[in-house]
Amino acid sequence: MTRRFLGLDPGLRTTGWGVIDAADNRLRWVADGVVRSDETLSLAERLAQLLRGVTEVVASYRPDAAAVEETFVNRNPASTLKLGQARGAVIAALGAAGVMVTEYTPNSVKKTVVGAGHAGKDQVEFMVRRLLPGCLALTPDAADALAVAICHAQNNSGMARRIALAAASR
Amino acid sequence: MTRRFLGLDPGLRTTGWGVIDAADNRLRWVADGVVRSDETLSLAERLAQLLRGVTEVVASYRPDAAAVEETFVNRNPASTLKLGQARGAVIAALGAAGVMVTEYTPNSVKKTVVGAGHAGKDQVEFMVRRLLPGCLALTPDAADALAVAICHAQNNSGMARRIALAAASR
Repeated sequence: MTRRFLGLDPGLRTTGWGVIDAADNRLRWVADGVVRSDETLSLAERLAQLLRGVTEVVASYRPDAAAVEETFVNRNPASTLKLGQARGAVIAALGAAGVMVTEYTPNSVKKTVVGAGHAGKDQVEFMVRRLLPGCLALTPDAADALAVAICHAQNNSGMARRIALAAASR
Repeated sequence: MTRRFLGLDPGLRTTGWGVIDAADNRLRWVADGVVRSDETLSLAERLAQLLRGVTEVVASYRPDAAAVEETFVNRNPASTLKLGQARGAVIAALGAAGVMVTEYTPNSVKKTVVGAGHAGKDQVEFMVRRLLPGCLALTPDAADALAVAICHAQNNSGMARRIALAAASR
């Protein structure tokens, strides 16, 4: 049985997204991209752009489940609020479309994808490319989104072994 | 010319809302209430409930403009994130419905409604009742929402004088 996973990296300016299919012990890249909001518009219009963009991604790819990274909250409170607002629009879009959303800590995503909880962004992007051949035009935001999707697939379909093997063969 | 204002007090558990009409130097209460999310559901489902609830309020009352209070960010970061997410769903709903949203600091709301930036919640509720006769079944969340709506009306239709007079006659 193939299950389709949508990963998201929410942000007000750009929200990365990535869709993968998981069947038995195989992962397949389907699509990735970013939803952008126009910085010249008001906050309400920008959040509406995220809402519409994510709604369109869900309508186009019909994922069985979605995942987002849990957010660091020990940073600048104003940034936390801003990011929270972007996350609210993104997660509300998923909820309104009836998609279940699971949250993963950044460390658990890295551990699943790279094999180390404190891996750098470059390592994550490298492993995403290795695990999902074909996603050539990868932006950093989409890479993060695909990493979360891989993490969720691993937690939902017993594919820990395949990913661990791939990580070991780096 | 009558202009209709929607005020909102976003929160994940309950989002207060209030609608008022402003014509020349008169304010009129139209409706108020709260959008609740079900605490037993997932975050995505709860944010979708806020999204739907606010969308329904806008569809029912067709406000010309909306306003929300700016949020204190110097509190618990986890609370800031949670509130940010609720605000994101609420403000995205307004943006998607094409409603302009203005933010006011809590102090400017209190100053407009009560005449003092450091007024207590009771004073705000008292003045909201006085300025808007008829809103009898007022919940605290709806009172805050109506206070923001009054603040926005005052800033949009030269009714500062009437409110200042009412405050002075307390």
